Amino acid sequence: MTATIDPTTDLYPTRLPQPGEAFNREHPTVWGSPDDGPFDTAALEAHEQRGFTILEDFITASEVDEFSAELHRLSTDPTLAGDPRVITEKASGEVRTVFEVQKLSESLAALGRDPRLLDRARQLLGSDVYLHQTRVNYMPGFKGTGFYWHSDFETWHAEDGMPAPRAVSCSIALTQNYPFNGGLMVMPGSHRTFVPSVGETPEDNHASSLKEQKIGVPSEDVITTMATQFGIDQFTGAAGSALWFDSNIMHGSGNNITPFPRSNIFMVFNSVENALTEPYAAPAARPQHIANRDFTPLR
Amino acid sequence: MTATIDPTTDLYPTRLPQPGEAFNREHPTVWGSPDDGPFDTAALEAHEQRGFTILEDFITASEVDEFSAELHRLSTDPTLAGDPRVITEKASGEVRTVFEVQKLSESLAALGRDPRLLDRARQLLGSDVYLHQTRVNYMPGFKGTGFYWHSDFETWHAEDGMPAPRAVSCSIALTQNYPFNGGLMVMPGSHRTFVPSVGETPEDNHASSLKEQKIGVPSEDVITTMATQFGIDQFTGAAGSALWFDSNIMHGSGNNITPFPRSNIFMVFNSVENALTEPYAAPAARPQHIANRDFTPLR
Repeated sequence: MTATIDPTTDLYPTRLPQPGEAFNREHPTVWGSPDDGPFDTAALEAHEQRGFTILEDFITASEVDEFSAELHRLSTDPTLAGDPRVITEKASGEVRTVFEVQKLSESLAALGRDPRLLDRARQLLGSDVYLHQTRVNYMPGFKGTGFYWHSDFETWHAEDGMPAPRAVSCSIALTQNYPFNGGLMVMPGSHRTFVPSVGETPEDNHASSLKEQKIGVPSEDVITTMATQFGIDQFTGAAGSALWFDSNIMHGSGNNITPFPRSNIFMVFNSVENALTEPYAAPAARPQHIANRDFTPLR
Repeated sequence: MTATIDPTTDLYPTRLPQPGEAFNREHPTVWGSPDDGPFDTAALEAHEQRGFTILEDFITASEVDEFSAELHRLSTDPTLAGDPRVITEKASGEVRTVFEVQKLSESLAALGRDPRLLDRARQLLGSDVYLHQTRVNYMPGFKGTGFYWHSDFETWHAEDGMPAPRAVSCSIALTQNYPFNGGLMVMPGSHRTFVPSVGETPEDNHASSLKEQKIGVPSEDVITTMATQFGIDQFTGAAGSALWFDSNIMHGSGNNITPFPRSNIFMVFNSVENALTEPYAAPAARPQHIANRDFTPLR
């Protein structure tokens, strides 16, 4: 499927002065066909309907070990202390996220080009793709805090100038995701609904929003309506599982009082036909390490 | 089974000046036999091993409605505003818990004497029983905060003078417990281990501990060891389900960012042969509405 995305028209107005109605998006979720990659017809249909797909054993146990060691190396690298790509936990100061890992790690850069990821990303998005954002996340046991409900695309559109929801995220678990240790919750089917948020984006919003998002989140009424309509699913599974999810799916996570930490690799693929333009609803574009502006197709 | 409990000897020393070793308790979990009540041999054995039992459809749908209305009535009763039995959420001020409901509600008093509860409580504890503590809990959607890992018995022993873990709690869900809306997590089998806590009990500790427990909780090392040894289960199920759990089981709950609130009735039965004495590790006994000192057997 091909659809021309005209970046000069804002099809997803958000950060509005007054609450706006949620609406059904016109852009598809799956842009490719079964001939284009590893997902078969049923898998693509399910992904279009639900907005996410969980693949068990997506990477091997030895790869889990390798990437876990890489995460540990990055989060303790003294040369990265104070680097804006390193995000710390608000309360404890522990490293929670490292961004732009394809530039900091050869093995993670290779993973972004691995056919297991690249072929699926190209198939779902129906075009060549590039990495819009990458990161590794570490949520510690006992004091891991969660993330409130949000759509990633709402932020990428408003603050990064991503024209349409033609992007897909791949989250690879490096630890077991139990139902009770702060794993991702998604509302299946919610990706078809765009929810405009209320309030102007402050300058340098990302400096605080990466720790705790306050702008760009839906109202409690909207979340209640959507949770009642769509229900809530959880991304559970062994280390090595992958969750592929649409850029506009409503998702969030609770806190983690268990001793079981949770870490993952997170890679966002965007279609090269959906390259970033100026932010649609923010005073300035976010930095390169959060919103990549090198749109060279991955090979 | 009969066992003499000598209240003059402190068999469960806690609130210690230095960390003490966890130890296996000698008191049984199940004191009665299959002939004594509704639980059959297998159910009693499972309860002894795991320390908890979940019973679906424990009360009917119309009882769920009736008790939910009663909870609503109690939490909005203007004559109870400022009553020490009414506990509010730390952040929002919303009513979170109402204690001693058997004195505030005829229907809840009747529930405490209902054969479905009373026969099981008597069977598990092998004697006549009374209500040590009762409450209704309301955890709102979006901002419900959880409770850190703890053993109830540790507190009841230290602060209420309960000699032995010969008490059992019955939690009846008035809303659906999903895996993701802050329901109870338990460590199956952990009830056999007593974990002394560290630190002297401050005066009036209960005034703050009912909102957020800081004294009487195990160390992260102990929780990690126990979670690895025992694993973690969740109390999930439809409204009307009941969880029966031993007074010493390690349990906790996460927060709730979903729109789905969670409410329940909580009744603690204690053996009349295990009546309260002076607190074992606190400057003064807690108030009557938290630790009932009327040991008259329920009929």
